[in-house]
Amino acid sequence: MRKDSFILPEGVIYLDGNSLGPLPAAAMQRLKSTVADEWGELLIRAWNKAGWMQMPARLGDRIAPLIGAPEGSVMVGDTLSIKVYQALDAALKLRPDRNVVLSDNGNFPSDLYMAEGLLKTIGRDIELRVVAPEAVADNVDEQVAVLMLTEADYRTGRLHDMAMLTRRAHEAGAVTIWDLAHTAGAMPIDVDGCSTEFAVGCTYKYLNGGPGAPAFIYVRPDIADSIDPGLSGWLGHAEPFAFDLEYRPAPATERMRVGTPPVLQMAVLDTALDVWEGLSMQDLRDRSITLSELFIKRVEKNCPQLKLMSPRDPQQRGSQVSFAFDHGYEVMQALIARGVIGDFRAPDMMRFGFTPLYLDEGDIKRAVAILTEIMDDEVWREPEYGRRSLVT
Amino acid sequence: MRKDSFILPEGVIYLDGNSLGPLPAAAMQRLKSTVADEWGELLIRAWNKAGWMQMPARLGDRIAPLIGAPEGSVMVGDTLSIKVYQALDAALKLRPDRNVVLSDNGNFPSDLYMAEGLLKTIGRDIELRVVAPEAVADNVDEQVAVLMLTEADYRTGRLHDMAMLTRRAHEAGAVTIWDLAHTAGAMPIDVDGCSTEFAVGCTYKYLNGGPGAPAFIYVRPDIADSIDPGLSGWLGHAEPFAFDLEYRPAPATERMRVGTPPVLQMAVLDTALDVWEGLSMQDLRDRSITLSELFIKRVEKNCPQLKLMSPRDPQQRGSQVSFAFDHGYEVMQALIARGVIGDFRAPDMMRFGFTPLYLDEGDIKRAVAILTEIMDDEVWREPEYGRRSLVT
Repeated sequence: MRKDSFILPEGVIYLDGNSLGPLPAAAMQRLKSTVADEWGELLIRAWNKAGWMQMPARLGDRIAPLIGAPEGSVMVGDTLSIKVYQALDAALKLRPDRNVVLSDNGNFPSDLYMAEGLLKTIGRDIELRVVAPEAVADNVDEQVAVLMLTEADYRTGRLHDMAMLTRRAHEAGAVTIWDLAHTAGAMPIDVDGCSTEFAVGCTYKYLNGGPGAPAFIYVRPDIADSIDPGLSGWLGHAEPFAFDLEYRPAPATERMRVGTPPVLQMAVLDTALDVWEGLSMQDLRDRSITLSELFIKRVEKNCPQLKLMSPRDPQQRGSQVSFAFDHGYEVMQALIARGVIGDFRAPDMMRFGFTPLYLDEGDIKRAVAILTEIMDDEVWREPEYGRRSLVT
Repeated sequence: MRKDSFILPEGVIYLDGNSLGPLPAAAMQRLKSTVADEWGELLIRAWNKAGWMQMPARLGDRIAPLIGAPEGSVMVGDTLSIKVYQALDAALKLRPDRNVVLSDNGNFPSDLYMAEGLLKTIGRDIELRVVAPEAVADNVDEQVAVLMLTEADYRTGRLHDMAMLTRRAHEAGAVTIWDLAHTAGAMPIDVDGCSTEFAVGCTYKYLNGGPGAPAFIYVRPDIADSIDPGLSGWLGHAEPFAFDLEYRPAPATERMRVGTPPVLQMAVLDTALDVWEGLSMQDLRDRSITLSELFIKRVEKNCPQLKLMSPRDPQQRGSQVSFAFDHGYEVMQALIARGVIGDFRAPDMMRFGFTPLYLDEGDIKRAVAILTEIMDDEVWREPEYGRRSLVT
């Protein structure tokens, strides 16, 4: 759909855009201008003259339509882990008389770790209740202060029903936080329609913002002015350059800013967001389903040793597909050596991401042909594909 | 001392490196290689193959000698505000039976804001006691859990005696956190020698890491393994890629990592740190004092309307000098219009930073000549220099 907007290495079929999106073709030119013309020439003046200071809000406004959020409700900054912490701290303050944070064991571990850290820091006794994904709905009760989930499982792509679970949580009086790391830029999301209080996400996966690109946080507009920010940094102050000794939060989502934003990463993200102009998220989703269905069908026919770990119903999964195999690690190494880049999650899961922005049916067919050859040749018996650490 | 290592605009005398350091000459080339060769070509594999995953520790090890810290004790990441929060949370856990955080009204406001936010999140009753800088020593008592100070005042450059106050705090049983934002890269620092438990700092001022470059945190090695991280993100986990559901901290300072690090900003910072190779911090400090003494002497002779707000004794101030004047804002605008870039802090303070890496006596003399002309011409009466927001 936008293949020319990216630079991909010759001979590579990139099925890992769910982990790190590829390089937007315009990124380098933009960096040159930000570095040479803005930092180099304007120096400190660039904070005003080049609009650096407004970038967190401006980029938030560019992400907003991709997740169904209104203007002014999304702020960019920090890392996703920090944004999870910030959202959970704010959410718990909205329910001071409840004592359970409900999540599931399909959540990305860092979300659970950040919750664990925050609950230890908070004095009062709050339980982090981690249940199976299918048990979430039944565990929403009157004790639950916050329901905190990731929409798509990072291993299998299994989707939660965000609208239903949010409704269920609200009926029980709980606040919701949705982590959109594996869905933002992959499929339509409607944070406004489902009325979640908070959403967070990252921009280096499907949004192609580059390695370590900043995260984002959404706060529902009707409660934004009543949020009490725990990470009360100076750039979330009502008047940062008054240098008051006491914190007064800025209006609405501006208060979710913390420290000095990463200008170079934001410049690249800004360019990456250009790719979405004029694109329909529903079209993208339809194309993604076509690709993943094709992949599953051919893999199951040609590589019967591999076991599908993702939901078979495409409406139940995000834009990624996982297959389990005892020698999955070795097979993935062999795939990568042949230019088909996916990744691996212990103990035995091969992950493949489907990003129609730069992948078409031809890519998928070739990827499966290469995988089939690897399986037919039983290359996992070759010592060169032994286990090493594989980072994604 | 290293003028060729930076790109400065023609005709500019840059006296604001204390706010945002200028562009290192090698930065663009390094970004090209990180973006095109690493992100573009290696894609997800760059986390291992290009060493991205190890950068926070590797950059920490490059900053360590500049602040007198041993190898393995400094970690790069996040923003300074986040690092202050992280240090204070950890420090308070070391003194669970004390109930005062002591700081001063010369601290950078964001440090106080972050403390305020953390104390609200923590259930137990802890007082943030903010005293005058000269009253700090007398306020260290047996109730103080943590003494949290910035070594150099951001407005005037006034220095705290870090060794003396740390000793004083330790005698009273308190833990110390030093914010080195305005001293790291400006003068010799000896975190190891003064035995502070924590230090934090930023890298976009005197270390020239670029706009929004990540911060750093130092933890004293003998206590690093007993720190209980509040911001317990996955990259501070003992085995991030095991994806356990429960947090187990990584050894030592690795546990101060949180989320996915900003690779592009780190690449530029890495290049900026090359400038320090083979440089003596004491030589740099001596040159900085020569420059600031020259500046003060000439300004006081030629511009008697300006009032020195920084300590007169160069040993009592960092690498910046401030002068107060009722029309300071207008004068600073006029200076900037003539290529002499400093900044302004309300209500009336003009700040000038002295960075011998790229400034020499000739620059200082010219800057004072231009300032003198502005004062002689009373340019603040000209409407074009009226007040607008000035961001630094």
